[in-house]
Amino acid sequence: MRDPAGYSYLSLLTDYGREDGFVAICHGQILERAPAARIIDITHEVGPGDLRRGATVLAETLPELPPGVHVAVVDPGVGTERRGIVARAGGHILVGPDNGLLVWAAEALGGISDCHEIANPGLWRHPISRTFHGRDIFAPVGAWLAAGLTPAEVGPELALSALVRLQEPRRAVAGGIAGGEVRAIDRFGNCQLSLLREDLAGTGDTDTPPESLRVHLPAGQWTVPFGPTFAAVGSGEPVILVDSAGYVALAENGGNAARRFGLSVGDAVDIEPGEPPHTPAGG
Amino acid sequence: MRDPAGYSYLSLLTDYGREDGFVAICHGQILERAPAARIIDITHEVGPGDLRRGATVLAETLPELPPGVHVAVVDPGVGTERRGIVARAGGHILVGPDNGLLVWAAEALGGISDCHEIANPGLWRHPISRTFHGRDIFAPVGAWLAAGLTPAEVGPELALSALVRLQEPRRAVAGGIAGGEVRAIDRFGNCQLSLLREDLAGTGDTDTPPESLRVHLPAGQWTVPFGPTFAAVGSGEPVILVDSAGYVALAENGGNAARRFGLSVGDAVDIEPGEPPHTPAGG
Amino acid sequence: MRDPAGYSYLSLLTDYGREDGFVAICHGQILERAPAARIIDITHEVGPGDLRRGATVLAETLPELPPGVHVAVVDPGVGTERRGIVARAGGHILVGPDNGLLVWAAEALGGISDCHEIANPGLWRHPISRTFHGRDIFAPVGAWLAAGLTPAEVGPELALSALVRLQEPRRAVAGGIAGGEVRAIDRFGNCQLSLLREDLAGTGDTDTPPESLRVHLPAGQWTVPFGPTFAAVGSGEPVILVDSAGYVALAENGGNAARRFGLSVGDAVDIEPGEPPHTPAGG
Repeated sequence: MRDPAGYSYLSLLTDYGREDGFVAICHGQILERAPAARIIDITHEVGPGDLRRGATVLAETLPELPPGVHVAVVDPGVGTERRGIVARAGGHILVGPDNGLLVWAAEALGGISDCHEIANPGLWRHPISRTFHGRDIFAPVGAWLAAGLTPAEVGPELALSALVRLQEPRRAVAGGIAGGEVRAIDRFGNCQLSLLREDLAGTGDTDTPPESLRVHLPAGQWTVPFGPTFAAVGSGEPVILVDSAGYVALAENGGNAARRFGLSVGDAVDIEPGEPPHTPAGG
Repeated sequence: MRDPAGYSYLSLLTDYGREDGFVAICHGQILERAPAARIIDITHEVGPGDLRRGATVLAETLPELPPGVHVAVVDPGVGTERRGIVARAGGHILVGPDNGLLVWAAEALGGISDCHEIANPGLWRHPISRTFHGRDIFAPVGAWLAAGLTPAEVGPELALSALVRLQEPRRAVAGGIAGGEVRAIDRFGNCQLSLLREDLAGTGDTDTPPESLRVHLPAGQWTVPFGPTFAAVGSGEPVILVDSAGYVALAENGGNAARRFGLSVGDAVDIEPGEPPHTPAGG
Repeated sequence: MRDPAGYSYLSLLTDYGREDGFVAICHGQILERAPAARIIDITHEVGPGDLRRGATVLAETLPELPPGVHVAVVDPGVGTERRGIVARAGGHILVGPDNGLLVWAAEALGGISDCHEIANPGLWRHPISRTFHGRDIFAPVGAWLAAGLTPAEVGPELALSALVRLQEPRRAVAGGIAGGEVRAIDRFGNCQLSLLREDLAGTGDTDTPPESLRVHLPAGQWTVPFGPTFAAVGSGEPVILVDSAGYVALAENGGNAARRFGLSVGDAVDIEPGEPPHTPAGG
């Protein structure tokens, strides 16, 4: 998939929405510099300035894309002194602001092997605005990289320890309780937690998660079965499963779990083994 | 347009939305297996699990696309025993779950000529999740078909009579009344009915629909002119016309008929000849 | 980027939304006639029939795209006698209804050099509907032009003075007051005004805009600093800046200025020099 002189694929993730022409303008900048690039739009519906959401979607998506250049722009600090960076990870190249947006995705790709600061204005669109670096800097630099430029030509190398990181989501297992948070809510209302299957298993005595789980949410406590898929429970019933990205998720078969339980991204979720649902609870 | 070794075009229709990375992940699976495929996104805004909506949009769109592979995923039964299928129709190949989603589109393309069950795990992405068969099965299989694989290589042939079908929309003409239902409502609020021009003509004595129609809706009854286009009536006035897909539609010139008449998809609509609008009604 | 036999790029802007199959149907019509065309979707989220919005987004986007054919369809008069046109401007070709939609964009590209009426039915999709000329006329004609057809083959030349124009937005500087209106509001709530930097400078005695501006809005009056970027003010504070398209904009650092000030597109905005924010105002 790797072109000797660059990459065939360039993906784009922003918080620009699709109501305006901003995304098409970035496409235009890319195609003028890398006409052979195939653009994959990941999403442009990240909430305005919502770095954690952008970082989460990026980390979940990039491992499923062919090797390429990935330009991500959620950039509340545009026009300030925050740096732009180019990070290599697992045969991919990530381009965006140094505000934590790229780090989780780079780690999902195996970790950053090297990182360069975007510092070569000869690669940018001029004049440079103070408010639209997606158009002026990130899309052009990504395009040149797709067209075969090397990261070293973009600017000086940065120490990986100098990169800005977002706070990691809550995740701990202690005393038979797995403590996590809602990491993402998808369109179907499925609530992806910051917990893995092994965290659930860690609440009990065996290698597998308990068949029944007690879930502590901001709005109350519920006993929910653990199952392999939505249809492990009846229609309209809640279920905890391991989702397609490998995370524990709270879902509702044919329904919207986020609405049912009043959950938002970032809410704390504690899980412990529950009474088996077929055993009458003792009050 | 047909590549000797496959198809150039691969379309995608899902209920995944564009807020998450799910659609891009499917693109990634396709491009890794069929790098020459050109992907056409039909829509990803089908309501979660809304099979009838997905089937309706697919049936209206596919006849207007060049021959290709069409992957459709609205799949409330994901993770259960429901089958995946590959159906050939009119020079196109349709791929998706066997839940009725594909049938109307296949019939709009001239009918299914043969159908195979998706049963060859060698074609899938592994590990297979229980919740995201768009990524793991349907997109990969569609990509291999676009790259030149034959349906017979996907799995055993199925009897067409064994395929799951959705209930057909209400449609009958009797006693001078055409009885249909709202088949689809578009972004403009135009209400496409499950009736054809001939059904309206069948309510009267001639080959053409009456100039004035009496419409019975859940919220009441109205007399609405039949016209060739929106502007056949004044701005803000309702009109019944034959839409671009060949269906009778209730519209409002410059306005939103669904909102005006409080209509939803599936609502019953009965139409009979009305008093001509220029004749004062007799109470 | 210009193919000797046509254009590589074809952009599309409509008010069709992405919930229906309308956009994909247009893609299908294009690809059947110009299989080598690369389609750039500008936006399909223009409000139904909102010509001014469509014209504004088109004018802001086209100068940032590579030379190509640009098909735009916001067409409340579809099915009436309004003409379809093909206009050449600055090495680009614009295709759409003659209702003012294309004119601002053509001027942003340097002005229309010649214009032809779409009058050759041999280029269209048949049968022609009365409600979906994007599919039947504009997309096919755009595709043929991308494939190398010349505008003269589309129909007779039109006098530029005969083209329909939208009313220009309010913009005047007099008596130290710059009078404009809200030209566009983006997803972030930034309010782009119909004023340029020079209009602000024209309210004072120097070549640069005053550091502090007094803004008269429908909901009241405010003193707002003029700055180079969002972060010129504290988080949650309003700022007036020159945006990435060169227009004066009223924004809020990390917030939504349209919501803060209750502004809608078309609202009048008058700006005059204000008390410097560091000088205590005299009551």
